[in-house]
Amino acid sequence: MGNAETKLTRFNIPAMDEILGKHFPVLDDGFVAVIDYMGGDSSIVQAARVSYGDGTKKISEDRGLIRYLLRHRHTTPFEMCEIKLLIRIPMDAWRQWIRHRTANVNEYSTRYSIAIDTMQTTSFDQWRLQSKDSKQGSAGFLDMSAGKELSQAEQEFQNKAREVYEKRLEMGIAREQARKDLPLSTYTEAYWKIDLHNLLHFLSLRMDSHAQQEIRAYADIIGQEIVKRWCPTVWEAFVDYRLEAMTITRIDKEIISLMARGQSESANQKLQELGLLKRNESGKLLRNRERSELEAKLKNLGLETPWLKEKKPLAS
Amino acid sequence: MGNAETKLTRFNIPAMDEILGKHFPVLDDGFVAVIDYMGGDSSIVQAARVSYGDGTKKISEDRGLIRYLLRHRHTTPFEMCEIKLLIRIPMDAWRQWIRHRTANVNEYSTRYSIAIDTMQTTSFDQWRLQSKDSKQGSAGFLDMSAGKELSQAEQEFQNKAREVYEKRLEMGIAREQARKDLPLSTYTEAYWKIDLHNLLHFLSLRMDSHAQQEIRAYADIIGQEIVKRWCPTVWEAFVDYRLEAMTITRIDKEIISLMARGQSESANQKLQELGLLKRNESGKLLRNRERSELEAKLKNLGLETPWLKEKKPLAS
Amino acid sequence: MGNAETKLTRFNIPAMDEILGKHFPVLDDGFVAVIDYMGGDSSIVQAARVSYGDGTKKISEDRGLIRYLLRHRHTTPFEMCEIKLLIRIPMDAWRQWIRHRTANVNEYSTRYSIAIDTMQTTSFDQWRLQSKDSKQGSAGFLDMSAGKELSQAEQEFQNKAREVYEKRLEMGIAREQARKDLPLSTYTEAYWKIDLHNLLHFLSLRMDSHAQQEIRAYADIIGQEIVKRWCPTVWEAFVDYRLEAMTITRIDKEIISLMARGQSESANQKLQELGLLKRNESGKLLRNRERSELEAKLKNLGLETPWLKEKKPLAS
Amino acid sequence: MGNAETKLTRFNIPAMDEILGKHFPVLDDGFVAVIDYMGGDSSIVQAARVSYGDGTKKISEDRGLIRYLLRHRHTTPFEMCEIKLLIRIPMDAWRQWIRHRTANVNEYSTRYSIAIDTMQTTSFDQWRLQSKDSKQGSAGFLDMSAGKELSQAEQEFQNKAREVYEKRLEMGIAREQARKDLPLSTYTEAYWKIDLHNLLHFLSLRMDSHAQQEIRAYADIIGQEIVKRWCPTVWEAFVDYRLEAMTITRIDKEIISLMARGQSESANQKLQELGLLKRNESGKLLRNRERSELEAKLKNLGLETPWLKEKKPLAS
Repeated sequence: MGNAETKLTRFNIPAMDEILGKHFPVLDDGFVAVIDYMGGDSSIVQAARVSYGDGTKKISEDRGLIRYLLRHRHTTPFEMCEIKLLIRIPMDAWRQWIRHRTANVNEYSTRYSIAIDTMQTTSFDQWRLQSKDSKQGSAGFLDMSAGKELSQAEQEFQNKAREVYEKRLEMGIAREQARKDLPLSTYTEAYWKIDLHNLLHFLSLRMDSHAQQEIRAYADIIGQEIVKRWCPTVWEAFVDYRLEAMTITRIDKEIISLMARGQSESANQKLQELGLLKRNESGKLLRNRERSELEAKLKNLGLETPWLKEKKPLAS
Repeated sequence: MGNAETKLTRFNIPAMDEILGKHFPVLDDGFVAVIDYMGGDSSIVQAARVSYGDGTKKISEDRGLIRYLLRHRHTTPFEMCEIKLLIRIPMDAWRQWIRHRTANVNEYSTRYSIAIDTMQTTSFDQWRLQSKDSKQGSAGFLDMSAGKELSQAEQEFQNKAREVYEKRLEMGIAREQARKDLPLSTYTEAYWKIDLHNLLHFLSLRMDSHAQQEIRAYADIIGQEIVKRWCPTVWEAFVDYRLEAMTITRIDKEIISLMARGQSESANQKLQELGLLKRNESGKLLRNRERSELEAKLKNLGLETPWLKEKKPLAS
Repeated sequence: MGNAETKLTRFNIPAMDEILGKHFPVLDDGFVAVIDYMGGDSSIVQAARVSYGDGTKKISEDRGLIRYLLRHRHTTPFEMCEIKLLIRIPMDAWRQWIRHRTANVNEYSTRYSIAIDTMQTTSFDQWRLQSKDSKQGSAGFLDMSAGKELSQAEQEFQNKAREVYEKRLEMGIAREQARKDLPLSTYTEAYWKIDLHNLLHFLSLRMDSHAQQEIRAYADIIGQEIVKRWCPTVWEAFVDYRLEAMTITRIDKEIISLMARGQSESANQKLQELGLLKRNESGKLLRNRERSELEAKLKNLGLETPWLKEKKPLAS
Repeated sequence: MGNAETKLTRFNIPAMDEILGKHFPVLDDGFVAVIDYMGGDSSIVQAARVSYGDGTKKISEDRGLIRYLLRHRHTTPFEMCEIKLLIRIPMDAWRQWIRHRTANVNEYSTRYSIAIDTMQTTSFDQWRLQSKDSKQGSAGFLDMSAGKELSQAEQEFQNKAREVYEKRLEMGIAREQARKDLPLSTYTEAYWKIDLHNLLHFLSLRMDSHAQQEIRAYADIIGQEIVKRWCPTVWEAFVDYRLEAMTITRIDKEIISLMARGQSESANQKLQELGLLKRNESGKLLRNRERSELEAKLKNLGLETPWLKEKKPLAS
């Protein structure tokens, strides 16, 4: 218990001390750097033990306790760790980033200072096509010759943008107004300080395959290069229980349970009742998002999806 | 788009208007009452459509959209609904409740006013025994004759507590100091205002079977009597995707996948490698929390747990 | 007390119901509209009374209670009121707005939908010059002929920006990538929901004379057209105790106290001791920010600043 | 700018390292101890400079910048400092403490462990009388002989409380239920982690003369013994601009301005118009809270309150 007074020394993590200030590059001109941190795997254990009492000491080793806490969403001990990063990022990705509210932020101010003179550029083979399946995603790349055209137009436009900005400054216009037409691709910098629980939440959303590629690039670096060094036990549990976990809904459970026992006919019937096997007039199965997600889970578990076995293709 | 100006009228939900101010009783002298609310199923749809754009109108009906949002943890549209409750609750349960930080609270002040003159009492058949399996739980009841003894002692103690408190007030002691020895069973009241996203999070934790019975009683009422009336489509999705869902970890996935294809030997071996099948010297399987949880999931899905089939009992 | 059960009807404010959905125009193409609200002056009183008890009923009328609460920063009762706005605003101003974290937000997504086809433009007489006194401010306007040049360049640049954007879309580029060079002047829309306490905090910062003109325009409308209708008593108190109040520091107090009693010599000496009256070699007073602020307060109170009376001008 | 990569070493504050783990005693059996910290005066400056740009380097020294930031409520740089404390405190004071939501908390759990066996006791000369002026305060002490009686009753009651609790545990009752009648005076412990901005807000409320004595004792120690060592420049500014500052309302400004110029008749008349000089039938001035506060401020500034100079006493 805390009641026993002990002289403490600061808790340092050599693997983190080694990378303090180091720029991990992201995108064409961005980076992430650790400025400072507080706590680590063992401060989570320390905090959990004040909550969950002495009893935990006997039955669990530290690793087991951390894994238990993460599996059961006992989130407060993870809040006892804090990290401060310096991030250089295009404003467009930053607009998504800043929506995570439980963090402390000091962003470079283009009201006080002249805007950073770099914009994110796109190489000719990196123009992504609009996904047909998802309103929000991208899929595949534009062919390179068309890509060259777009990259050149991007370059000219960005030059023009800087010229317009600098012309205004030259004419004495206030920085707060001169900046109004800067492109979203303009880089900004920010100190970003967050606790580990909220950082893991950020990572679980932004390392996800549905996250936009630009912000994923940052999230991947923070996860793989920083959190993994900072709290290796937490990171391992996070991969097992969050990143590579799967949620099985009430409906999924019923179908998986039927399929696992080979009762594919009952599974078919259950889906029918739930309205997940609707067909058009020609008898083709209609797309249904919830069913598609179930199908992906069944596939992931090595189970079959008998309702897809028919010859008739899906209605488009 | 919001760009088109329209005269609006307030969004009312008749099923909610009917219960405004009604006390839903909880425990021996507690209650929950709805004081006001903002929004409902359709304001979630409205908010989602400003974010996700016109496209969503065509492909999804409202119910489908709400279910999609909840399934994919697109949480911000749920924050557009707000509810204000009045709660009467013992201070002990309130101590747990108040740990949910994303809510607005006005609690009855025993600094300004004399403490409410009711304490939560325990009937002779409601004394719960400490769980042996769980440090934090209870399991089964004390036999009634012993229970009578405890209930009587509780009554005497509570009377004494009130007497001590009132004696102090009589002697002119400041309320802020007189209250210092009030038992945690003393009832308090509070206005509690929260958005639907955070309320669902509260419910998913406090309706859980591991939550303490007293706070579960409140959470159940709020879910079943209030949220179900307020946002019936959200409630239905919440039951399907949260309350009755199951999380499958990376390890669970591998084992379920093997068992579903009848490869029980490989499943056994995999668990062995992961250190989840340790035995003591006499060859009895040692308890392992992560494995127990996996076993419960397999059972829930109708799958077998071959490593438990041996005759030798578990080591205690 | 809440203990007495009463059938409630929803709390409506006719002055608000009249403006639901109405667009209050801001800037050249922005607006603010009220979508819904919860509570008002009287729900603050209701909440305060659960906290501060029956006693408050006797001594204070509602207005007095609200004024007392605001004066003494008893903030929780103000959190019991909630409002939902729809806002159309340039991304540049939105970048400042979104830094207020204690609000719920659903912003128009340019990942899901095509960006709104309007950018904020600057009329030729509205180009503001960089302030010399303040790193962050503006002061005065560019002369109109030069302004015409800038406005024309702005128009051409914005046309070009839209052209680049639409060209990308035509070529099938994903919306999430096509948007990357949109100017910050591009309008966006968002639902924004916030409680009254946090809204007042937002207003006190953003109606301030140091706030950027663009965001002030929104804050002024929200204050004068919306909060004033919604909670007239709170608004009156907010003007008296926040907007038109003044903070007097420990040092200010000493000087004001001396000046009020006509002891200007002692005031001079005190400032000297505090290092606030430093001079350069030629004996000219050096600029000092803290002293300037004190001088402004003294002036505001009708008191003199004897140390400025000398003939020698300030060192620049 | 952050753009230049530099190898960093952790930022340590020797004065803090010396007290890590040290128990600063509070009340009869409580304490506060620093477990860890991140940042300090210079990380505030670092963060401010990313926001406010290089320009600030030239004109302000660090101390001036910190003082400017605090005076002008530029709060985000202060959020860049974080501290983790271990606190031992009676549950009654903790109930007030926990209302500060922007902190991370791990409290000792009486669900998992047996409650700490100490309750806060009151010495016979420390029983405070209810204030007549303030619903919420205390004023003066009970005479000691009556105090002895109360202290003895307190001791007996607390012994009884522990006996009841332990009896339940002996009979096998679950800890989560056995605790239900523990007195609020029972000590608890918690890790409490908070950023400097929110800590200063906590201190400004809890070091205030209206805060309850028990929580003030903790706040005073945190301020005087901890923050002062951690961020000495911030502490100095906080005392000058917050703790010993004064807010002057719109009305106060007018009256102070009149009184400072000796126009006491106009001041009288102004107050009359504002309804702050109401009298009863016998002509005695009625109490008015806003006026009393103004009178206190005038006194503090060495100014007179002519309306109080009459012989007639205040109406009670």
